[in-house]
Amino acid sequence: MKVYRKIIDVQSEGLHPTFHDVTKQVKKIVDESGVKDGICVVYSHHTTCSVMTQECSHDKTYFGLEYLQQDLCNIMEKLVPTCRVEGQYKHPGKEHIEFARTVAGEDPFTSLNTDAHLRSVFFGRSESIVIMDGGLDLGEFGFVYFIDWDQVRARKRQVQVQIIGE
Amino acid sequence: MKVYRKIIDVQSEGLHPTFHDVTKQVKKIVDESGVKDGICVVYSHHTTCSVMTQECSHDKTYFGLEYLQQDLCNIMEKLVPTCRVEGQYKHPGKEHIEFARTVAGEDPFTSLNTDAHLRSVFFGRSESIVIMDGGLDLGEFGFVYFIDWDQVRARKRQVQVQIIGE
Amino acid sequence: MKVYRKIIDVQSEGLHPTFHDVTKQVKKIVDESGVKDGICVVYSHHTTCSVMTQECSHDKTYFGLEYLQQDLCNIMEKLVPTCRVEGQYKHPGKEHIEFARTVAGEDPFTSLNTDAHLRSVFFGRSESIVIMDGGLDLGEFGFVYFIDWDQVRARKRQVQVQIIGE
Repeated sequence: MKVYRKIIDVQSEGLHPTFHDVTKQVKKIVDESGVKDGICVVYSHHTTCSVMTQECSHDKTYFGLEYLQQDLCNIMEKLVPTCRVEGQYKHPGKEHIEFARTVAGEDPFTSLNTDAHLRSVFFGRSESIVIMDGGLDLGEFGFVYFIDWDQVRARKRQVQVQIIGE
Repeated sequence: MKVYRKIIDVQSEGLHPTFHDVTKQVKKIVDESGVKDGICVVYSHHTTCSVMTQECSHDKTYFGLEYLQQDLCNIMEKLVPTCRVEGQYKHPGKEHIEFARTVAGEDPFTSLNTDAHLRSVFFGRSESIVIMDGGLDLGEFGFVYFIDWDQVRARKRQVQVQIIGE
Repeated sequence: MKVYRKIIDVQSEGLHPTFHDVTKQVKKIVDESGVKDGICVVYSHHTTCSVMTQECSHDKTYFGLEYLQQDLCNIMEKLVPTCRVEGQYKHPGKEHIEFARTVAGEDPFTSLNTDAHLRSVFFGRSESIVIMDGGLDLGEFGFVYFIDWDQVRARKRQVQVQIIGE
C-alpha cells in the first residue's frame, strides 16, 4: 500500500471559464505510481476551481469550450450570474476588499470573482476515481477536466493528484 | 491495510430518471471486505449517472420514485430541462453525432441525453462514505442511491464499490 | 499506512442555515494522526448537511453568516425555496410523517426540512482533502465548513474526520 502524489500546472485564459483536459496527465501519473488497485483523488486547493469527469463533446465554441461545457456555463449563468460590478453580490464586502488589498496585495477588481467562488462549490473540489487493473476506471468515454471558474483574469493553477492503493 | 472492489449491476427503466437503492449491496460488500476502518467509495464511471446518500422518503410516485427524488427531479427540470429535440442545447453538435454514429455505433436520438450529462455533474460521480466499527457510517437514516439521469432509453449500468482500509 | 478517525461535535442555531468553520479542529486531527501523506475525508452522515471548502469572506450578516455564505443561501433560496408549509414539496408524504411520528418519535413539523435534504445533495456529503508534508493542502486561503441546511430547529451534529495515509 502506498501514497503517490504529483502536481499538474495549468494556465487559464480569463474572460470565460476555462476547462483544462488533464486526462492524459492523470493517466500518466497513475502509470508512474505503479498502483494497480486504489483511488485517485484529483483535487483543487483553489477556491474558485472544480474537478469534473465528463465525456468529450467534440464540437467547440469560438473560445474553445466543448459544447457540453458551454451548456454548463449557460446554466450557471442563469443560476449564478457572472459578477460584473461591486454590489451585485454581498461578497466582496469592505473587510474582504481591505484584506485582499493589504494582506494579499491584490487589486480590488480581482475580488469580483464571486460567481467563481459560488459556482465552484456546486461541483466540488475533487473527484475520487477508482483505479483497477492498473488504470483509471473512466468507462469508455470519460475525461477528467479541471475547471477554472475565475473569469476576471488569466491565472496559473495547480491540480493535485493524490493516489492511494497497492 | 487492503483494497477491495466489487461491481453492482443495475438496469434502468428509461422514460424518467432512475434511482437505484444499492444500500444493501454496498453494506454486504463492506462485510465481505473485512475492513473495519476506512473509506468506501461508491462510484459511477458512466457520465450520465451520479451517486447520492439521502434518507428514504417512503411515499412513492406512480413511476416508483420516492417523493424526495421526485422533488429533486422537479428542481432539475427547472434548472436543466429535459432535452426533447436537437438544438435545445448546443450539445450534441455535428461532430459528436458523427462520432456517436461511426465510432460508438449509436442512433443519433440516444445523444439527446444532454440534460443527463449536465445534471450528473451537479451531484458528482461518487460518494466517499466513512467505514467505522466494520460498517458504513450512514447515520440513523442514510441510504445510498445510484442515480441514472438518462431518460432516453433503458440501460444496464455498473456501480463500482472501492474500499480502502484495515 | 494507517487509518485515523475523530468526531467533531457541533451545534446549529436553527432559523437559518448554519456554516460551522471546522478548519482548526480538522488541522489538529491531522496533526494528531501523524499522517504525512494521504487523504482526509471530512464527512457528514446527516442527510441535511454538507461539507464545503471555501475562502473566508470576512464580512458578516446580522445572523453571523459570511457574505459568500449568504450569497450561496440567496441562490439556494431561488433554486430550492425554504419549505414553509406542508404541500409545498411532495416530501414529506403521509407515510413519511407516520414513520417520523411512530419510529423516530418526532413532531411532524420537523419533517418540513425538505429544502435542507434537497440542498444538501447539491454540495455532497464530504470533501476529500489532500494531506501533504504533514498538513492539509488548503492552498493559501482555504477553510473547511460543515453546513447544516436544516432551518427548522437547532440541532447537535457530528462531523466525521477520516484520515488514510502514511
